[in-house]
Amino acid sequence: MLLKELRTAVLEANLELVRRGLVLYTFGNASGVDRAQGLVVIKPSGVEYDELRPEDMVVTDLNGKIVDGKLKPSSDLATHTLLYREFLEIGGVVHTHSEYATSFAQAGMAIPALGTTHADYFYGPVPCTEPLSDEAIGGDYVHETGLAIVARFRGTLEDAEEGRDEIDPMAVPACLVAGHAPFVWGSDVSDAAHNAVVLEAVARMAYRTLTLEAEAGVVTKALLDRHYFRKHGAKATYGQG
Amino acid sequence: MLLKELRTAVLEANLELVRRGLVLYTFGNASGVDRAQGLVVIKPSGVEYDELRPEDMVVTDLNGKIVDGKLKPSSDLATHTLLYREFLEIGGVVHTHSEYATSFAQAGMAIPALGTTHADYFYGPVPCTEPLSDEAIGGDYVHETGLAIVARFRGTLEDAEEGRDEIDPMAVPACLVAGHAPFVWGSDVSDAAHNAVVLEAVARMAYRTLTLEAEAGVVTKALLDRHYFRKHGAKATYGQG
Amino acid sequence: MLLKELRTAVLEANLELVRRGLVLYTFGNASGVDRAQGLVVIKPSGVEYDELRPEDMVVTDLNGKIVDGKLKPSSDLATHTLLYREFLEIGGVVHTHSEYATSFAQAGMAIPALGTTHADYFYGPVPCTEPLSDEAIGGDYVHETGLAIVARFRGTLEDAEEGRDEIDPMAVPACLVAGHAPFVWGSDVSDAAHNAVVLEAVARMAYRTLTLEAEAGVVTKALLDRHYFRKHGAKATYGQG
Amino acid sequence: MLLKELRTAVLEANLELVRRGLVLYTFGNASGVDRAQGLVVIKPSGVEYDELRPEDMVVTDLNGKIVDGKLKPSSDLATHTLLYREFLEIGGVVHTHSEYATSFAQAGMAIPALGTTHADYFYGPVPCTEPLSDEAIGGDYVHETGLAIVARFRGTLEDAEEGRDEIDPMAVPACLVAGHAPFVWGSDVSDAAHNAVVLEAVARMAYRTLTLEAEAGVVTKALLDRHYFRKHGAKATYGQG
Repeated sequence: MLLKELRTAVLEANLELVRRGLVLYTFGNASGVDRAQGLVVIKPSGVEYDELRPEDMVVTDLNGKIVDGKLKPSSDLATHTLLYREFLEIGGVVHTHSEYATSFAQAGMAIPALGTTHADYFYGPVPCTEPLSDEAIGGDYVHETGLAIVARFRGTLEDAEEGRDEIDPMAVPACLVAGHAPFVWGSDVSDAAHNAVVLEAVARMAYRTLTLEAEAGVVTKALLDRHYFRKHGAKATYGQG
Repeated sequence: MLLKELRTAVLEANLELVRRGLVLYTFGNASGVDRAQGLVVIKPSGVEYDELRPEDMVVTDLNGKIVDGKLKPSSDLATHTLLYREFLEIGGVVHTHSEYATSFAQAGMAIPALGTTHADYFYGPVPCTEPLSDEAIGGDYVHETGLAIVARFRGTLEDAEEGRDEIDPMAVPACLVAGHAPFVWGSDVSDAAHNAVVLEAVARMAYRTLTLEAEAGVVTKALLDRHYFRKHGAKATYGQG
Repeated sequence: MLLKELRTAVLEANLELVRRGLVLYTFGNASGVDRAQGLVVIKPSGVEYDELRPEDMVVTDLNGKIVDGKLKPSSDLATHTLLYREFLEIGGVVHTHSEYATSFAQAGMAIPALGTTHADYFYGPVPCTEPLSDEAIGGDYVHETGLAIVARFRGTLEDAEEGRDEIDPMAVPACLVAGHAPFVWGSDVSDAAHNAVVLEAVARMAYRTLTLEAEAGVVTKALLDRHYFRKHGAKATYGQG
Repeated sequence: MLLKELRTAVLEANLELVRRGLVLYTFGNASGVDRAQGLVVIKPSGVEYDELRPEDMVVTDLNGKIVDGKLKPSSDLATHTLLYREFLEIGGVVHTHSEYATSFAQAGMAIPALGTTHADYFYGPVPCTEPLSDEAIGGDYVHETGLAIVARFRGTLEDAEEGRDEIDPMAVPACLVAGHAPFVWGSDVSDAAHNAVVLEAVARMAYRTLTLEAEAGVVTKALLDRHYFRKHGAKATYGQG
């Protein structure tokens, strides 16, 4: 079987989303990429989780053309493949409608970095895209969803003129799509699922912080640096590694 | 046994409501209709869920006259039968006091379409009835509850004069009864239960979105169309169908 | 063993509070009364629930004097016995720090009757006592807690002058103690535990209704009558009874 | 094995945090101290809970120097050891990112004493530290976190001049670190874990009380005394002790 290990990892990540309560019915999908072969493995669309087996995963190329699989791939495939083409360091993508992150997306709000739990995983606010135009929605919608995410990370001409930096997708491995829900990624599909679970916890705490104190301040640059680089990069000190 | 399959489906839908946490004690009921025979199968009133068997379901005609069954039917029967008589395409009805949807009903507020999770299932806001008059409450109350729902979908003369369309009950398969709780329906009783579970998830997210950002905007018509018709109608693309 | 059935019922009610998530550690207690013998059976103080057996229950007279039992009774005993002496129709009392009802108590707010779930069980708002005076707190505190509840139901001279009726403890079987938590009662200890579970559900929905719409209106007298008398009194229609 | 009983108690306390839902993934740690030997036992950093055995616990001296253990200790060790050096009566320390307590920490707010559940455990508000300076964050950060807690309990010169008392760490066994999360302690590690669970419950109720009624008043000194000393000190009456 082609990409047997990756299929198993993608299935396991999908099940992790269910176990952690991020998914209702079949509202979620995870994929992983094999960069060497240029192949993506993704969950099929609308199949019950308890029936899924590794061989049900769908394999496509980086443009979403099906290479192997009898089932239809997740309807969000074109967003996944665009993210793989544009964010070259990522190895896995997860999309859920996890409820607190989705509530921020529905409010059109970024999740501000209000504490160290956030800073341990996301080096700055988790951004929210601009609303998609009617044209984009009526056109190649799933692809356009990916474009909106990429645009939010690359920044606009106006961002550049005003000195706002691009966002590094490996330093902030998630984006809220306005009026929709989060997309989350990571170094591989397992890492992407882990980040999706943490994003939802961070969103729950941000929700409660902001409803308690609407003017709650974000963490300082110093605290963001301290916590983010505690878990990431060459000088990481957390864990047994 | 009359309507054996429908009895089993109705029982299973009632149990699904319990499993999904929509029901406390016996506060909920589901029914299904056999259009060919003009018969309704509904849960009996106030019986513990773990004691229910298919043969305990009560069979009535479309006017609520008992045709088969030793137990008293759910006290909400007259709302169910009215909905079956008025909304001819529906095959199942569910009533719960699921807590977030009920909180909107208690606030007398419709659940606005704030995101794509909503748009995947409900083609526009989930409406809330007008409060029932004292006369309606003191009269044939359960029947009047159904009338209030139907009135909300058909619209008033004033709605018509101001160009507000009727609401299609198959496109928006739920209504909040002001000061009370939701009624939800679907193509069959299993679909109605599924819609009730999604309604509660949508209500949870709408609650959090609105308490985070009271001015949160609703999704555009384009996004509503894109998501609703992704899962419904002749051009649906979701799932393996 | 004295009062064997009542001991078993009291133990079972205490366990029901745990199963329904109303109790953290040992923060709760339930008691039942045998009116014929004038004896109260109550949970012992601070014992782990999974170790409790019927013979561990403590039996006291209506003044709280221990008649049988090796363990110390719940520290809230004097509130229970006062309620039994003053509210002659009640057969069971439950005290928990269930979190949403306690949040209203901490806010010093009654739980308004915002919907039919409330009206099915509580014929009007669930009242909140006045804060206890320093003198009452420094004196016979547990007894004074009971007095504050009774005072809230009997009404003050000012209430009488302004035409506010007494509250019937059988029609509103619960009271919030300001800055503390709810006391709930019923026709027997099982009914009291059931009412405590429903009170917490009603409090959750009232919390969400009021945080969504601070001006949410209470149900009409007509709706309150319809729902309350649907489940209570000679003309009750709910269930198989 | 050195300190076998304490290792087992520390492991058990860590697992209790997981069972009570205070910990996501490996975001938490508990330690205990042996005062006679001057040794601390703490969880290793970033190891899965279901793999932990007593022999995996790390033993250090009161300055955090490893005395026994193959694994790296929790990255928060230096906060634990500072608390042991400064608060001489405590026997266990727990750190979690439990979500409601963390939400107050992110808001930079103390948890006010709004009810008797709080007063049973915390004799006054659970304070929140000042935000750490950039210098402290960039320096010996984990140690500085402990210093900020101690400073909050000892009080500043300004506190003294304005007549604000020091806070007794045994009377208020927890502190929120601004923008971060709670640290909780107790007479031993089991007591510290128990206090951490109660803190989270108290934070949940405080959150709901304040979002319901922003002006909710704190309990009176009389009620605080009554409840705190009901469970603590020579005149405690709660439980079977």
